[in-house]
Amino acid sequence: MTTKRDRTVCVIGLGSMGFGIAASLLRGGFDVVGCDVNAEAMARFAALGGRIADVPTDAGRGAHVLISVVVNAVQTEAVLFGEAGAIAGMARGGTVLSCATLSPEAARDFEARIQALDLLYLDAPISGGATRAASGELTIMASGAPQAFADVSDVLDCIAAKVYELGDTAGIGAAFKIVNQLLAGVHIAAACEAITFAKAMDLDIAKVYEVISASAGNSWMFENRVPHILEGDYSPRSAVDIFTKDLGIVSDIARGLKFPTPIASTALQMFVMTAAAGMGRDDDASVARMIAHLTGLDLPGA
Amino acid sequence: MTTKRDRTVCVIGLGSMGFGIAASLLRGGFDVVGCDVNAEAMARFAALGGRIADVPTDAGRGAHVLISVVVNAVQTEAVLFGEAGAIAGMARGGTVLSCATLSPEAARDFEARIQALDLLYLDAPISGGATRAASGELTIMASGAPQAFADVSDVLDCIAAKVYELGDTAGIGAAFKIVNQLLAGVHIAAACEAITFAKAMDLDIAKVYEVISASAGNSWMFENRVPHILEGDYSPRSAVDIFTKDLGIVSDIARGLKFPTPIASTALQMFVMTAAAGMGRDDDASVARMIAHLTGLDLPGA
Repeated sequence: MTTKRDRTVCVIGLGSMGFGIAASLLRGGFDVVGCDVNAEAMARFAALGGRIADVPTDAGRGAHVLISVVVNAVQTEAVLFGEAGAIAGMARGGTVLSCATLSPEAARDFEARIQALDLLYLDAPISGGATRAASGELTIMASGAPQAFADVSDVLDCIAAKVYELGDTAGIGAAFKIVNQLLAGVHIAAACEAITFAKAMDLDIAKVYEVISASAGNSWMFENRVPHILEGDYSPRSAVDIFTKDLGIVSDIARGLKFPTPIASTALQMFVMTAAAGMGRDDDASVARMIAHLTGLDLPGA
Repeated sequence: MTTKRDRTVCVIGLGSMGFGIAASLLRGGFDVVGCDVNAEAMARFAALGGRIADVPTDAGRGAHVLISVVVNAVQTEAVLFGEAGAIAGMARGGTVLSCATLSPEAARDFEARIQALDLLYLDAPISGGATRAASGELTIMASGAPQAFADVSDVLDCIAAKVYELGDTAGIGAAFKIVNQLLAGVHIAAACEAITFAKAMDLDIAKVYEVISASAGNSWMFENRVPHILEGDYSPRSAVDIFTKDLGIVSDIARGLKFPTPIASTALQMFVMTAAAGMGRDDDASVARMIAHLTGLDLPGA
């Protein structure tokens, strides 16, 4: 009988999401190899008892499952297919899970190229943040061949609280994630606009948070991000640059479809303005700081 | 001892919110007089056992509490202070509750003029929709003199599940409501943009609703309004014109403060476009229909 210990899972990208995934798999009894350009993250993973490899090629050698948790399509391309790419030495019939937020087109392209190598591909964008990654309770919006789902069900069980099986080809999971990111990005920008507007009207913004988060104006993001503003804490739980990227993908897809997205495009510009002001790597609630700088408002922690 | 039966409450405006308020008060044992230009609403209220009056002056005569549940500042001005205005014959020391979404400036103006007549004023915008109005479970974002709160506490208990006491002068309640409406309006427009974008990407939009409403992209409005789109039912629970009005107030206040509101202004334009296309009196989820018309998408019920 094959045990989890006999299943080698390679995790490329040990940022906050990838680290949580790798740690969950280790805790779940898999043989896990981690790989990242960040030596500190590698050392932390090794300290947990994980195996580490300096380059993707070495990390992927003999892996039955490869999970790519990098930032975007360019990085996914590089870590999978690049000169030191991870898939070259994977076990025959292995499965690649790609977790980055990609355009549906990029996801379909990766799937075709992976399948041409007799490997399986799962379009598997993730949601839930670092805390739920660490506890193995992510949400995964996945699509791909039924065989791919079947082959990695134990891995998915270990890292996710909820796996949506959205279709049998890549691109569908990516599209669902993009719709989620459109709303998430707009809601963050709107939360920042609303709370600074409240401040401009001299309201007690802690009270505004209390009232609105119990009212019809609430959103998941309003409830989650406004506390960062109230505490004046812009250390990145999720960075501004994530949304310049993800709303940029929305914008690219929409333009390609000749589909107008006035709200998402406006929100994108607010993240771009915040990044332009030097806060791209700070928490995405920094849109509120950008507005406060511009308008001379005094937010907590300014 | 004074009983509720001895307390006359006048409700001006028997639209879906005002009717629910008047019916709740009647059920609660108050002596209630209703007034509306809509004869059908008046007849329905009379059928419940309520008293009715054709003009505000008659409705307000001898009232201890007057609740104005009309659409905007112009109507509030007319029903309170106009030629046939309701406050002229109110009982000495009575209290006026104004429930329309107003600018803080308008609320302060009304308070000053009401207080000059030795009456009390409560800035009392409401939230929760027709269903919660009918069941006496509104949310009220109120501010005003402590004496006004004290004098109408039995009335508030009867119509609201939650009363926020936000300050001791008018304008604060109005400002809280405006922040709520900024977010509510943006979230509706964003929900409509996102769900039509999903349709443009050929996704199963019922599945999108299921996944997103359980994810970080969710908002109170996404969860509440997208079912109208999935059912193709645009009968007005809350109309497009409410948001051209309320986001218009946001825009006016913000311009006055020299405060930029790019997201709210974009959402406002989407409601204006929807009203321009002839759907101003339809459900506010009609923004999705407007986008579908424009882009040739097939939504349910089209």
